[in-house]
Amino acid sequence: MRATLKLLAEKTNLSVGAVSLILNNKDIRVSPEKRELVLRLAREYNYRPNSLAKGLVTKRSKTVGLILPDITNYFFAETAKYIEAELSRQGYSVILCNTLDRAEEEQKYIDLLLSRGIDALLICVATESLLDQTFLERLTKLDITCVAIDRWTETMTMPHVAVDNREGAKLAVRHLLDHGHRRIACLTGPLTALSARDRLLGYEEALREVGITPPVEWIQEGDYQFESGYQQGLKLLQEDITAVFVCNDMMAYGVYKAVRESHKKIPDDLSVVGFDDLLFSQTLDVPLTSLKQSTLDIATRACAIVLNELNGNDHAQHVILPPSLSIRQSVKTIRTHDES
Amino acid sequence: MRATLKLLAEKTNLSVGAVSLILNNKDIRVSPEKRELVLRLAREYNYRPNSLAKGLVTKRSKTVGLILPDITNYFFAETAKYIEAELSRQGYSVILCNTLDRAEEEQKYIDLLLSRGIDALLICVATESLLDQTFLERLTKLDITCVAIDRWTETMTMPHVAVDNREGAKLAVRHLLDHGHRRIACLTGPLTALSARDRLLGYEEALREVGITPPVEWIQEGDYQFESGYQQGLKLLQEDITAVFVCNDMMAYGVYKAVRESHKKIPDDLSVVGFDDLLFSQTLDVPLTSLKQSTLDIATRACAIVLNELNGNDHAQHVILPPSLSIRQSVKTIRTHDES
Repeated sequence: MRATLKLLAEKTNLSVGAVSLILNNKDIRVSPEKRELVLRLAREYNYRPNSLAKGLVTKRSKTVGLILPDITNYFFAETAKYIEAELSRQGYSVILCNTLDRAEEEQKYIDLLLSRGIDALLICVATESLLDQTFLERLTKLDITCVAIDRWTETMTMPHVAVDNREGAKLAVRHLLDHGHRRIACLTGPLTALSARDRLLGYEEALREVGITPPVEWIQEGDYQFESGYQQGLKLLQEDITAVFVCNDMMAYGVYKAVRESHKKIPDDLSVVGFDDLLFSQTLDVPLTSLKQSTLDIATRACAIVLNELNGNDHAQHVILPPSLSIRQSVKTIRTHDES
Repeated sequence: MRATLKLLAEKTNLSVGAVSLILNNKDIRVSPEKRELVLRLAREYNYRPNSLAKGLVTKRSKTVGLILPDITNYFFAETAKYIEAELSRQGYSVILCNTLDRAEEEQKYIDLLLSRGIDALLICVATESLLDQTFLERLTKLDITCVAIDRWTETMTMPHVAVDNREGAKLAVRHLLDHGHRRIACLTGPLTALSARDRLLGYEEALREVGITPPVEWIQEGDYQFESGYQQGLKLLQEDITAVFVCNDMMAYGVYKAVRESHKKIPDDLSVVGFDDLLFSQTLDVPLTSLKQSTLDIATRACAIVLNELNGNDHAQHVILPPSLSIRQSVKTIRTHDES
């Protein structure tokens, strides 16, 4: 038999409300003996508070929604893992939603999560939604805390936690320049995404600093997926370049495949720098030099904003984290006469 | 202003109960005009039903718990993605929990999920818990549907969905035998897990069929993680073997690293077959031949059990799915005199 408040009330000759107050350790005028009896019976009958009912009273569901484009992307999987760990330590459960980067799915999930009474929302906005100002304004007007992770735009007024993509890209391209490369291509993410535009800007800036203006053929747009890295990689191999800055590791793996199928070698025929530093980048036959975005930092800072707000404290609105370069074996040093 | 049942009741001069019945499309004796008025106002005020309150009435929270060892393992990430997609189509939300394969965390998550009134539980049991018969019996006695995915033991009476690990391993080892290999090692998963024991049994059976009894040094135990693949891979490279069956792809990536660091080559110096066929296995410099477990099939069948049970229908209790071999470039054909 499942113990309910009603059962405990019957057994102790108290009202349901009185039993509830005692179990929640609240003040109520009953004898210490009676209070002890309620607690003892609750243990004996293995009483478990019903969160649904509790949520109605406290107006807290102790759940947080987590909306991501795709949990099979390792960057998101790792971020989700750290978020879930941090929030569960504070007694919150995480409802996971995958939008497959579709704005329509995203809208549905937000409605669903709100109807479930979530206390806060963490969201990596779908690429298309980043351009939808009405949607972004709706997010800021929710009556719960909403924090954007990873992707954001300048027009976003809600709190967000992201990595400094522009500085990261400059770091990557300067690394190639330092190794003697001058003909450096860029395989970008989808340019609807600010992260992709920022990485492209960083690439252009780093080249401009040494007086290089890349011709348009050196810049190819991908969509952050493996397949686009492969397809655009095949195109870039037709260009007279010695290196490519690939704007995420998933696409860099596609470039590796394109290089392999063209019977060329990394880094002898092409130097490659990625962005994300996924675990798998260490396991490649030629381990990939890549920009590291700390998923732990992103998760920790995003959770801190949520928890601070739920506890009524102030919090930082915009957190931009610095990336670092994990140097491995995918970049060759070339001498000036190689470049002549 | 957030529309509530109370507000709608005041505006229409009906009781809260009456408004609730109308919004839920239930029978109640009011005029069609009054009914229409309630529905119109609900739209105007953007009324959203409160799931918490609704859950108390229907005894359904429309949430399903998903307990996994680690969402950053690609196999689990993909399974979670398909489960979430399938269940959300049916109006269920998924609460994600990562146990980090710790039995203690698992217990806590189960208690938490139950107190949240989940309608069903999908669980990939922690390695240690598979040996804990009391724990497994508790799972079968929950008053909600509980389905084990991936890992299971013979003593488990609850429904489960898994891949036939023993047949899969035989397929992998026969592939090596067909390519002329005779000195074939096995890098196992943690032998507390049935999946790991079954894969080892399949390896031994396939060898026995051709009259080979592997010496103990050919069998090394790992823990399904990258690092153990690397460490045990270094050990196996000291043995006089031509091939290794690695019981999951994550460990196979570790073996790749060990081979690379030993200045050897796959498949020239060592042929490798993995298990899981993760996406990254195609992107390796030498694409990995690997057993494919269909995460889509696992997710679909597990969700079908849950949904059937929630709808009061019969369902299969134990689903064992056949794996298939994805053949790539990590296995070399050797002639008999290579083996002399």
